[in-house]
Amino acid sequence: MASIPQSHIDLLNTKFATLATLGPDGRPQLTEVWFLFKDDAVGISLNTSRQKTKNLSKRPACSLFILDPGNPFRYLELRGDAELVADDDYVFADQVGAKYGADLRDHDGPGDRRVVARIHPTRVNAVNMGG
Amino acid sequence: MASIPQSHIDLLNTKFATLATLGPDGRPQLTEVWFLFKDDAVGISLNTSRQKTKNLSKRPACSLFILDPGNPFRYLELRGDAELVADDDYVFADQVGAKYGADLRDHDGPGDRRVVARIHPTRVNAVNMGG
Repeated sequence: MASIPQSHIDLLNTKFATLATLGPDGRPQLTEVWFLFKDDAVGISLNTSRQKTKNLSKRPACSLFILDPGNPFRYLELRGDAELVADDDYVFADQVGAKYGADLRDHDGPGDRRVVARIHPTRVNAVNMGG
Repeated sequence: MASIPQSHIDLLNTKFATLATLGPDGRPQLTEVWFLFKDDAVGISLNTSRQKTKNLSKRPACSLFILDPGNPFRYLELRGDAELVADDDYVFADQVGAKYGADLRDHDGPGDRRVVARIHPTRVNAVNMGG
C-alpha cells in the first residue's frame, strides 16, 4: 500500500472528497462523498442502491480526490482498488455519522443496505502547486 | 449535447474543477484544472507533456466535476468525450490566462505545446443535496 506523505496527512481529516468510479461503459463517473480516515485506511460508507456502489462492485478501480478546502492548489489523490465490506449493522456508517453530526439512516430507503468501501491506494499523488 | 440546467449555470463561472481521465490501465485519474466556459462549451488548456493530455489523446472519455466553492453539497458533473484541438499560438491559453490573471507560458517547458480539450457532455448531473 502506498503511503501518504506527512505534508498532506491533514487532508485526511477534512470533510469532502470526490470519488471517481468506472461506469458500466468503462467511463469515469464522479460524485462528492463523505469519508472517514481510521486505522490507517480511508473508508466511505455507501448505500447499495447507488450507482457508484454498483460500479465498484463490478470494477473496484477508483480514485479519491481530497482538495484542501482553503487552498485549491493543494490536494491528495488516492488511486487504487476499493474493497466492499458489508456494514448491515451500520457500525461504520455510525462512525461516519459521528464525524458529520448526521444519521446515515436518513439517506437510506427501505431495503437499502450499507457497505464500507475501503480504499487501498497503490498510487498516491500529493500535490502542492503553490498558490 | 446534454444541456446544463439553469440552476447550475453559475458554476461554469467558478475557478476550479476536477478532471477525471482514464490512465493507460483504464483506471480513473484525477487532477485539479482551470477551465473556461465560452461559446457554450467548456474548454481546458492542456500542456502536451502532461499525463492527462496523453490519457485524453488515447481515450477521450472524461468527466469534469465543478463543485460550488460555497456549498459542497452542490455540484455539476459533465461526462463525455474531450476533443483535443491544437493551440500552438496560445489563443485559447491566453483566454484562460485572462480569467485567472496568469500567463500559461509560465507553466510550460521547452518543446511543450498547448492543446484545448473541449468537453462535449453527453450526460450532465446537476446535484444539490441541500446543506
